[in-house]
Amino acid sequence: MDGRKRKFILELQKKSRLRRESGLYVIDGPKMAKEVPSEIVEEICVTKEFMSSVHMAECSQLLKEAGFTVISESEMRQISDTVSPQGILIVARQNRIRGLKELLSSGGTPLLLILETIQDPGNLGTILRASEAAGVTGVIMDRETVDVYSPKVVRSTMGAILRVPFLCVEDLVKAAVTLKEGGIPGQPSVTLYAAHLLGAADYTEVSYRGPSAVMIGNESKGLSDTLASLADRRILIPMCGHVESLNAAMAAAVISFEAARQRRGTGILTEKQEL
Amino acid sequence: MDGRKRKFILELQKKSRLRRESGLYVIDGPKMAKEVPSEIVEEICVTKEFMSSVHMAECSQLLKEAGFTVISESEMRQISDTVSPQGILIVARQNRIRGLKELLSSGGTPLLLILETIQDPGNLGTILRASEAAGVTGVIMDRETVDVYSPKVVRSTMGAILRVPFLCVEDLVKAAVTLKEGGIPGQPSVTLYAAHLLGAADYTEVSYRGPSAVMIGNESKGLSDTLASLADRRILIPMCGHVESLNAAMAAAVISFEAARQRRGTGILTEKQEL
Repeated sequence: MDGRKRKFILELQKKSRLRRESGLYVIDGPKMAKEVPSEIVEEICVTKEFMSSVHMAECSQLLKEAGFTVISESEMRQISDTVSPQGILIVARQNRIRGLKELLSSGGTPLLLILETIQDPGNLGTILRASEAAGVTGVIMDRETVDVYSPKVVRSTMGAILRVPFLCVEDLVKAAVTLKEGGIPGQPSVTLYAAHLLGAADYTEVSYRGPSAVMIGNESKGLSDTLASLADRRILIPMCGHVESLNAAMAAAVISFEAARQRRGTGILTEKQEL
Repeated sequence: MDGRKRKFILELQKKSRLRRESGLYVIDGPKMAKEVPSEIVEEICVTKEFMSSVHMAECSQLLKEAGFTVISESEMRQISDTVSPQGILIVARQNRIRGLKELLSSGGTPLLLILETIQDPGNLGTILRASEAAGVTGVIMDRETVDVYSPKVVRSTMGAILRVPFLCVEDLVKAAVTLKEGGIPGQPSVTLYAAHLLGAADYTEVSYRGPSAVMIGNESKGLSDTLASLADRRILIPMCGHVESLNAAMAAAVISFEAARQRRGTGILTEKQEL
């Protein structure tokens, strides 16, 4: 592997701008690699040692379909962002969802999360993971949200990044208005809920059975007034004790699973989604 | 401050054994300090700079009641476990709950979490925080669970460690049996639920309105067979997509808030707990 390519792969993990411009990102390690569909693979690097490891079996189909380059362990250490690289690193193409229309076309009654300026990579990763588990049909975030393709986020999604439909938009307010007003041809209008400390309604007492979107704000500042004012309802997770608020990821998960609870048994969760 | 004491405070943050033997732990920074009751204070160190900072007002009552030592910023850096110490550090006495009887005496219909060998400090901290918010009445953990008084756990509870009743026990199985069999005089027997991937019941379809305990297992291994076999019901969080399991903290939070949902409006949450 030549020095230029090595440098490119390393920088792809460090620089969000390079990821944005190239449309590529890095998936590191066998745990996620085994779930990568060959269609999104740009390049796979493996070490000789990996090819004789226990993980080879679960990745062999992918390697066969997508092709791969064998590199030395020392090269792997040079291009990997992790402390102990595990012998397989994939340069993958970012998902291709280009707009709200495509996001909503993934089928089923929409249950969306709208994320405003989530800053912590672990939180964003956890939200994507919980979203997949709870049957959220799409996640929308603004450009100020931490880059979903950064290595830390990718890792903490534990693969959900490959499966949960998501979309980064320039203008979150515009997206929310479009959804609320039913501005997507062929799609119903969506009820907008704002998770808000001044929420008027208990989050368990509103219905997520219809087309719904839940807006979740920044970890320290919460939702901006502009977004919050767009909400059809402000919802609150009632809290005991002296806890002021849950962290953003926890709040997103608790609300998403309440939505899942309501939707179960109503036939809204599609078979593909249902356990 | 003499060198011996400096060393003691530093080691108190590094060594769980010293914490166990001394019955002390460290609370660092104004965010938590302002919530510390003076009764548990062994010692407070503050810097001169702190005393003229914006945080002084919210800590002044505590400093007045408990007394304090002024140290230099360089001394503070030497005794603090954090990268940027914030000028106040408290050596506090650990909570005094000595057994199940005392844990249950905190009042209200028991809603307990039983934690088996939780390893990640962030997970344990998050569980305590979510427990407080959801009105969990007590948390029981084994000695193999990460030390609840380690600086990382303390920080990630965001103060809940000061308020949620919890208990570390030698023998988790014995504790579970005692609770299940109503072995605590004056207390009802408790229904044991095991969060389990082979759960037979949807976690939303069982009742937490009565005295209940939910057992949560280790992050990678889940619940041991012995504990799981004690359960009255194995419960499952139904998951969509390809997610195999939620992380332990997320699962604990989702189940705790479902319990809170069921308990709200039934008068089981005490007024003190109710928002």
